Amino acid sequence: MIRAGIVGLGNIGRGVLQAIRRAEDFEAVAVFTRRDPQQLAKELEGVPAVSLDEIAQYKDKVDVLLLCGGSKSDLPVQGPELAKQFHIVDSFDTHADIPAYLAKVDAAARTGNKTAVISSGWDPGLFSMLRVMSQSVLPGGNTYTFWGRGVSQGHSDAVRRVAGVEKAVQYTIPVEAAVEAVRAGENPSLTTRQKHTRVCYVVAKEGADLAKISEEIKNMPNYFADYDTTVHFITAEEFKQQHGAMPHAGRVLHSGVTGNGEQKHVIEFSLRLDSNPEFTSSAMVAFARAAVRLAQDGKAGGFTPFDIPLCYLSPVKREELIKDLL
Amino acid sequence: MIRAGIVGLGNIGRGVLQAIRRAEDFEAVAVFTRRDPQQLAKELEGVPAVSLDEIAQYKDKVDVLLLCGGSKSDLPVQGPELAKQFHIVDSFDTHADIPAYLAKVDAAARTGNKTAVISSGWDPGLFSMLRVMSQSVLPGGNTYTFWGRGVSQGHSDAVRRVAGVEKAVQYTIPVEAAVEAVRAGENPSLTTRQKHTRVCYVVAKEGADLAKISEEIKNMPNYFADYDTTVHFITAEEFKQQHGAMPHAGRVLHSGVTGNGEQKHVIEFSLRLDSNPEFTSSAMVAFARAAVRLAQDGKAGGFTPFDIPLCYLSPVKREELIKDLL
Repeated sequence: MIRAGIVGLGNIGRGVLQAIRRAEDFEAVAVFTRRDPQQLAKELEGVPAVSLDEIAQYKDKVDVLLLCGGSKSDLPVQGPELAKQFHIVDSFDTHADIPAYLAKVDAAARTGNKTAVISSGWDPGLFSMLRVMSQSVLPGGNTYTFWGRGVSQGHSDAVRRVAGVEKAVQYTIPVEAAVEAVRAGENPSLTTRQKHTRVCYVVAKEGADLAKISEEIKNMPNYFADYDTTVHFITAEEFKQQHGAMPHAGRVLHSGVTGNGEQKHVIEFSLRLDSNPEFTSSAMVAFARAAVRLAQDGKAGGFTPFDIPLCYLSPVKREELIKDLL
Repeated sequence: MIRAGIVGLGNIGRGVLQAIRRAEDFEAVAVFTRRDPQQLAKELEGVPAVSLDEIAQYKDKVDVLLLCGGSKSDLPVQGPELAKQFHIVDSFDTHADIPAYLAKVDAAARTGNKTAVISSGWDPGLFSMLRVMSQSVLPGGNTYTFWGRGVSQGHSDAVRRVAGVEKAVQYTIPVEAAVEAVRAGENPSLTTRQKHTRVCYVVAKEGADLAKISEEIKNMPNYFADYDTTVHFITAEEFKQQHGAMPHAGRVLHSGVTGNGEQKHVIEFSLRLDSNPEFTSSAMVAFARAAVRLAQDGKAGGFTPFDIPLCYLSPVKREELIKDLL
């Protein structure tokens, strides 16, 4: 059994706890939290809640830590700090900051002879793996990533920061015509606007200026200005009934040619997820297993989903995988 | 540059030769053949054709051999023999015989301290990798593989062996209703007949009994008896015009649940290939690159697509992959 520690109990932490219960070869040793451990006890069904301050005492009781905090402020501190003392896995997802974050985690892990696997969700994560696989087997082609239909947490947060907004959720939606053109192997050049649209459902505060809210959202730089955005105002009741879930979806498409250039090929990978955080958590548990295997191989340092033989993700013996799935 | 040797010049060998021309980091050193090397020279655009009997002389001139023969009679002999002297890669695709073949290649490669990667096409190969990835990140779910619409070489051969058949091609076609049920997360139990249908285009010999040919095909055990099969008789002219290509396609679907079991997720990977052998060849070149990298790591023995970190498939530096694709 792999003894796992969970750091943080947000959506991802809860998902990891459930995914560990579903994994035949994992057991949850403790949930480490910055909150009052007493207050979490009820949620954990027997798994002890422990103050994050006491985590060093668990050095010999935990085989791998799953870091379930956010990429903005939690992981940049916790990743390098905890990688000195534990094998760790996280789902760090700020694409632009990955090289710098990996360098810090790598250096920390090497000082403690530990193994760290970062960015082990679905994007970054599985989608990234498919991008590398596709470009490798079909070089010189074009790769496209589409997200949605699904809830973007970052964009939902941005809408909630607009004055007059009480509650909000933002759905990212791929433009079907663009997906179809890529799927047909047309290699289209697509602007940001041509790839995705954005739809917001907003509960406004009483007396708020709806037109003003709508304009402010649609013109928000980086988040919405480059997209066709629709804003719907709904009641708190409708919001609660219709928009409580966190579904997401997406696809990676790659097309290219072989031989004399006349033979076209299209590779497509897609996910349709009822719960984005639960799926991410489930993937993290597989990568935590891989981190333990890399550590058993004596590999210290920072690793990514690109560095992992796929059989390391599985609880099934390599011989069985070869017999049943190859 | 990786110096590649190509063994055999059928459809796969020709595809490998073209894929190597497209790869920035490969050069073709020689094509090894059991035929008269003189007769191949024209096709090879400057790559020397060499008798397979002289391959031992190339031990220091070739970094990796790509074995392009068939799984039935070529590879079972060539794989274990050549793995003693060279790093090799092949696309061995007789699923049931993989464990035994791998054991032989592994033993041979270890005696020569060489690295061998087997079954590096798309199924076995990429599809196998997706099956392992999917089952690992979403354990306890159901995995389905559909093939087609595309030409099955084995089934086409079987039809050609029927008395009275001059030419024939067989298309494997997935049953769309079955694919849709899987995609909807319904986890259907599907019989062989419910997953695929088979369509044959046959040019009959003059005076042949068409009804008899049709019956014989449809009732052929293993190949057709368990499927709904349609047989079309066409002219040699139509055959030449419509059925000269070797397209194929397929998809791996996996669905499972997370959390309390209420959240459903569907993973789908699909390929649509204008030329099955050219795509297989292109994949083999990526796995040949990985074989060289594994060898550089000092790993001797027999390996599969499950054993390879994805970054080993790519000619791009790991740091660049992390920056651009993670």
